[in-house]
Amino acid sequence: MTSETKRAALIIIGNEILSGRTLDKNTQHIGQKMGEQGVPLSEVRVVPDIEYKIIEAVNTLREEYDYVFTTGGIGPTHDDITASCIAKAFERELIRNEAAFAILEDYYKDDEFTPARQRMTMMPEGVELIPNPVSGAPGFKIENVYVMAGVPRIMQGMLDHILKTMEHGKTISSKTLLAQLPESKLAEAVGDIQERNTDVELGSYPGYRNGLLWTSIVVRSTDEARLEEVANEVEALIEKLTLQNNTQSKDQSNA
Amino acid sequence: MTSETKRAALIIIGNEILSGRTLDKNTQHIGQKMGEQGVPLSEVRVVPDIEYKIIEAVNTLREEYDYVFTTGGIGPTHDDITASCIAKAFERELIRNEAAFAILEDYYKDDEFTPARQRMTMMPEGVELIPNPVSGAPGFKIENVYVMAGVPRIMQGMLDHILKTMEHGKTISSKTLLAQLPESKLAEAVGDIQERNTDVELGSYPGYRNGLLWTSIVVRSTDEARLEEVANEVEALIEKLTLQNNTQSKDQSNA
Repeated sequence: MTSETKRAALIIIGNEILSGRTLDKNTQHIGQKMGEQGVPLSEVRVVPDIEYKIIEAVNTLREEYDYVFTTGGIGPTHDDITASCIAKAFERELIRNEAAFAILEDYYKDDEFTPARQRMTMMPEGVELIPNPVSGAPGFKIENVYVMAGVPRIMQGMLDHILKTMEHGKTISSKTLLAQLPESKLAEAVGDIQERNTDVELGSYPGYRNGLLWTSIVVRSTDEARLEEVANEVEALIEKLTLQNNTQSKDQSNA
Repeated sequence: MTSETKRAALIIIGNEILSGRTLDKNTQHIGQKMGEQGVPLSEVRVVPDIEYKIIEAVNTLREEYDYVFTTGGIGPTHDDITASCIAKAFERELIRNEAAFAILEDYYKDDEFTPARQRMTMMPEGVELIPNPVSGAPGFKIENVYVMAGVPRIMQGMLDHILKTMEHGKTISSKTLLAQLPESKLAEAVGDIQERNTDVELGSYPGYRNGLLWTSIVVRSTDEARLEEVANEVEALIEKLTLQNNTQSKDQSNA
């Protein structure tokens, strides 16, 4: 990765993820989308619905990363404190956003636009709205921080909109090579390849498939040609080591 | 939650979670288990395989929380740098752990105990081992930090062992009440109940079931009696509001 690569971080706000009640799927979706965008997701924090924890995470990560996403805590209930925490993090007033108010006035029938729903239009001063294609209530952008809903379907709609407005880095491509070998048999040689090719990222992930031990070697790079070169080298290595391994097993079973 | 409640944090080490290649399921499992243990999981950080990020997360969270878990990065490959980062975080030497070495010597056949696998016995000085009931190579405990594997099945085996050795807090019980109402219709009244019962935690989570909009109200407490009291109050509220809502819808459809 070059030093010009822009990087993103994610703050997941919600006790339901920490208690294990809900399985977080937003990290995976955002991670994949940001890889395609060429702005890799580089850190995630899951914090509880506690004001100082949210403020601390926002202020730390917005300094360190080019973009920060938050998910969760922008609904109509007492535990939805994200907007007010973001206002405090940026030392701005929390005010009624008139554009958001107009959107929700239009979205709901008169007697359905309850005080609880009106609460969702309270945002820090001077934000840009992020449209919500699913359920009306918008998210918002403040400097480099994008505040999104936590419900995956709504979050995904908001993110699609954001990505259209965000600059593209070089797309990070990846290639996965499967080896029917334990990780440890590949470790040294793959480590060597990584050392000789520091511009390409090599990951090694063990797993079981069809009752057999496999290792996935993942090659990632923004440079397609270099990706191919290194992937070819890994492929040749896997072929060689698999052959060696099979020959050894045969020798042993003949012994 | 009382101030004596012990709290835990989790550091997930691994580019594969951040890139979206792998869906993290360890947070949910650890969150649930720690709730049962009465030591709630209170923060999670996902960090890449970058030394200073790992060291920073370990040193920040071990100060702030009673227990810290890490998952990932203790395998045999070049991207497994957790043990060395933990040694640096604690300013201890990284040495061959003789007990771990003996375990793996016994686990593997002679010619299978490769240099890569021997690398998994390099640990900070003075750790306690965490047995691995699945694949041999142990994790380790250093002060209040528990270093575990990232593969869910192995991590779960290690955690089961840890929980037996860890003190119990008061188990956090929870009760989920379902309402066939949008979140905003419940928001004010549930907020009131929360305000009057600060010793019990109320969460509100919108969702779809069978094509209808439902809200789950989750009541959580270490005190079973108080949990029941507040859950009963929420239940009565849901009944009342559902009845009102149905009557209104009927009025409107008759109008």
